[in-house]
Amino acid sequence: MAKLYVIGIGPGGRGDMTIRAYETIKKCPVIVGYNYYIDILGDLTEGKKIVKTGMRSEVERCKMAVEQAKEGYDTCMISTGDSGLYGMAGPILELADGIEVEIIPGVTSSFAAASELGAPIMHDFCTISLSDLLTPWEVIEKRLEHAAAADFVIALYNPKSKGREGHLKKAIDIVMKYKKSQTPVGAVKNAGREGNERRIFNLETIDYDFVDMKTIVIIGNNSTYIKDNFIITPRGYMI
Amino acid sequence: MAKLYVIGIGPGGRGDMTIRAYETIKKCPVIVGYNYYIDILGDLTEGKKIVKTGMRSEVERCKMAVEQAKEGYDTCMISTGDSGLYGMAGPILELADGIEVEIIPGVTSSFAAASELGAPIMHDFCTISLSDLLTPWEVIEKRLEHAAAADFVIALYNPKSKGREGHLKKAIDIVMKYKKSQTPVGAVKNAGREGNERRIFNLETIDYDFVDMKTIVIIGNNSTYIKDNFIITPRGYMI
Repeated sequence: MAKLYVIGIGPGGRGDMTIRAYETIKKCPVIVGYNYYIDILGDLTEGKKIVKTGMRSEVERCKMAVEQAKEGYDTCMISTGDSGLYGMAGPILELADGIEVEIIPGVTSSFAAASELGAPIMHDFCTISLSDLLTPWEVIEKRLEHAAAADFVIALYNPKSKGREGHLKKAIDIVMKYKKSQTPVGAVKNAGREGNERRIFNLETIDYDFVDMKTIVIIGNNSTYIKDNFIITPRGYMI
Repeated sequence: MAKLYVIGIGPGGRGDMTIRAYETIKKCPVIVGYNYYIDILGDLTEGKKIVKTGMRSEVERCKMAVEQAKEGYDTCMISTGDSGLYGMAGPILELADGIEVEIIPGVTSSFAAASELGAPIMHDFCTISLSDLLTPWEVIEKRLEHAAAADFVIALYNPKSKGREGHLKKAIDIVMKYKKSQTPVGAVKNAGREGNERRIFNLETIDYDFVDMKTIVIIGNNSTYIKDNFIITPRGYMI
């Protein structure tokens, strides 16, 4: 019986892919994924059957992956980051009746971004996607309110895209009701892959034009500070 | 000038270590870490200078790592999971004046645990450590209240240890003020490494004796359900 692997390939650079992800992709004859993710794999796709789709066809893509496994091919369904956070692990398990599935975790992009900014996360944190394609905006606003009120470090995914230009500004306005305006904010474009670029702001000085759909925005907590162009959130040790 | 690498080695199994982490550890002559983490590295430590300390000597360990780099050795400071979440990236950056530091991200244990439970995270989530060694319990309670009120998926780190036997029960009591009692809860002991063991409960049926200090507990959101012994949180796609 063929197996379906749901793989988080990490932020994109080969080095931040896990050994298990790399070896599993290498041994499987079929890879299914979004165009852009397939391109990232580069020479790992050589000699394999590649099934790729465009954006916003996630369910179709999952069905194709299940189909390949049903036809008897060991198949990799790939996502960037970790497939269990805003990835394909859920839809695959919802669809994959009677097929053996293995989920292979990966480095999510907020951790890749954090590593480039210094140590902005360190303590209790949350991730919030600003995309309202699948989640009502009111739910997103509610999560922003509570996350800021409880002083979590906040990592924002999908901060901008066509049709939601104003979402990040709206989100920051909510956060500023609770966090001080000097709270450090890091923004990393293409974290952990080619073309990466980082900026450090505070809540008041964010350059909204810098942020695009491939940017991760990390907002510190009440103790977060900037040192030597790094963002640091102390864990509480006496240094 | 020697370099200090702060490396998240992932949950523990070699397969879930990133390629960059593996290659960096391989090339460095000095490794610094907590006893248990050094043991996990196995043959990767062969022929190297190993500087290890016991638990709760985190700052001392960081100072030793900085010292090694200052003496001219390329040095790896290792943490399990991701070094930027409850790890050593912060203290190293606080201490490492004048030394070049590279943070290498890794797979955090909640993602390893999630991959073994199915797809319990998938959507907006937060991590909360129940250890009050460095964080006042009132802050932890406040975060639990807000995380549950906003219906985040919640991953609990350090749910139990000597001296805080009752913390998990207290945390679940808070969460149950907001989440329905049937909300799925997954607990994974030794996620992503030898000795791993998983259990699926709901908020009312948690076996508190199963949970130990090396267990990750993941609490679903309002849409989370159980299917074929997997926990799934839908992202919102029409399946």
